Amino acid sequence: MTTSNASVWRFVDRPETTINEQTFRLDQQALPALEEGQLLVRNLLISMDATNRLWLSEREELYMEPVKLGDSMKGFGLGQVVESSSRMFQPGDLITSLTEWSDFSVLDATAVQPFTCPAGLELAKAFGVLSIAGPTAYHGLFNIGQPRPGETVVVTAASGAVGALAGQMAKLAGCRVIGTAGTDDKCAWLINELGFDAALNYKNHDFEAELARACPDGIDVQFENVGGDILDHCLRHMNNNGRVVICGLISMYNSNENSPGPTMFHNTIMKRLKIEGFVILDHAAEMPAICSQLTSWLLDEKLKFKLNISEGLDQAPAALQKIYTGMNDGKVLVKIADPH
Amino acid sequence: MTTSNASVWRFVDRPETTINEQTFRLDQQALPALEEGQLLVRNLLISMDATNRLWLSEREELYMEPVKLGDSMKGFGLGQVVESSSRMFQPGDLITSLTEWSDFSVLDATAVQPFTCPAGLELAKAFGVLSIAGPTAYHGLFNIGQPRPGETVVVTAASGAVGALAGQMAKLAGCRVIGTAGTDDKCAWLINELGFDAALNYKNHDFEAELARACPDGIDVQFENVGGDILDHCLRHMNNNGRVVICGLISMYNSNENSPGPTMFHNTIMKRLKIEGFVILDHAAEMPAICSQLTSWLLDEKLKFKLNISEGLDQAPAALQKIYTGMNDGKVLVKIADPH
Repeated sequence: MTTSNASVWRFVDRPETTINEQTFRLDQQALPALEEGQLLVRNLLISMDATNRLWLSEREELYMEPVKLGDSMKGFGLGQVVESSSRMFQPGDLITSLTEWSDFSVLDATAVQPFTCPAGLELAKAFGVLSIAGPTAYHGLFNIGQPRPGETVVVTAASGAVGALAGQMAKLAGCRVIGTAGTDDKCAWLINELGFDAALNYKNHDFEAELARACPDGIDVQFENVGGDILDHCLRHMNNNGRVVICGLISMYNSNENSPGPTMFHNTIMKRLKIEGFVILDHAAEMPAICSQLTSWLLDEKLKFKLNISEGLDQAPAALQKIYTGMNDGKVLVKIADPH
Repeated sequence: MTTSNASVWRFVDRPETTINEQTFRLDQQALPALEEGQLLVRNLLISMDATNRLWLSEREELYMEPVKLGDSMKGFGLGQVVESSSRMFQPGDLITSLTEWSDFSVLDATAVQPFTCPAGLELAKAFGVLSIAGPTAYHGLFNIGQPRPGETVVVTAASGAVGALAGQMAKLAGCRVIGTAGTDDKCAWLINELGFDAALNYKNHDFEAELARACPDGIDVQFENVGGDILDHCLRHMNNNGRVVICGLISMYNSNENSPGPTMFHNTIMKRLKIEGFVILDHAAEMPAICSQLTSWLLDEKLKFKLNISEGLDQAPAALQKIYTGMNDGKVLVKIADPH
């Protein structure tokens, strides 16, 4: 093979709370020889997602296999085929997959998806929107949230990659859109750049009163990325027949313990709510249609998307941690290489 | 008018926890003269429902107007028109409505529904099944729970009127059905008389282990009447894409405080759950079709239904309390009069 060694981040120490300098170790490993149906892939971009932290937990319930101690850390990535033992892919092809935090990986061809960067879009932006964040926002908002024109939609963690897209899509659907974020600067960005009708700093002591004022007609669709107290405040203001899209519950991902559930849970009856969670990986069949819509919105500049790119594989742990310290705005990616 | 006075239970003292001897007072009141469009109704049967307790609370969120201190207590009832100032109804007609705990009531004709007892059915059973309990079980199970043959359905408070019907309907739908109840006798009844596959006494110390054993393939549909710890145990065992029907949360109705939400709430994502609450009063348009199906199941003896009838208006508070002390099995009704 062209390359016989790879640099790879291993998961070596389970964090009690946030990830830290002991959590991962950068190792060298020999790449195995390709078996029939396998690909040697150069990882170009790795997506950093809040959900990655969950894969390091010992929770009994996880929506997918966790990363085992000692194994290479995983992430969603954009890669380029370097060598192929599969008739499905040729060297040079771009692919997306669940890959490793590594410069090179050996992957099964059946576990990767071909990726075509739409003409007119920057590769990192195309990957950042089309691979996970955009379909997550789209499926959650439209297929579960089912917003109707004139309804009020609240998006939490609205300055994150998924939240910012979900909020803009809700505006495209004709809704009044309120976002929550953790700094006044992020809130200003949501209103001034993304066109949100209001944005609230959840750290303000009178957040709930502000939320009530920002939603004078109540909340019809709650697009939830956070959970905890923020979700409870929003549940209090839901309208009858409201839809609560559980896209993420980041407020609990840094703990191995269960958090209390929402004290306003009884509003499921009082307000006749539908609360529905989802994992975008389950919805592969919808991806072509969703990506086609996302691409045309991007090309028409109806969706804005900010990238937050860390350069170099060595930056991966710090890049993931940005999401948990609120230092991200926009989509956090780690760039490992340009396509060859 | 034929009758100028009525006996009526007034709500006079807000209970902190369970209702007690101070909560209601039996009064005499003069009946108002009928205005255009009104009916004088003899109340025949009053349905006692867990939800009645909620109407006495000071909760900010209630799915309908609460009963105000000093007002007559409300309940769903079967009545007979004595006098009519409406062209829609004649003396002698049977009607159902939200009525008073009273022997006679003056009701707006627009707020009552005509009731026809299907041939071959006892009046009390027809009212008990067709007015609230049956449609509640049917809508919750089929329209929200969407059980498929071979799936596992868990029904809590399964020996109550709604639970017993929901469980039998799930059997008719070809599901494995597990009920929970508060005594071994009730559990035996669920299995031996109603055909449940298993029934568990939630007071047993190893309830969760029993639940896991009774649901070796996990839970696909949770028909929830209780909430609290029982719901949490069940959420732990939900399968991917499970449906949680929030029909009732009786474990919290005796408190004016909010209870903690389910600690397994994160399973909405991990297991991709849909959790949906409903209030049957919203679904009047579905009633004719649902009642037609319920009637044919009753006539074919595919649904069994136990009545628990207290005789006399004076028994109403004690009858409601039966539901909260687990002394009910079957549908609790208060019989005030026979039709004339």
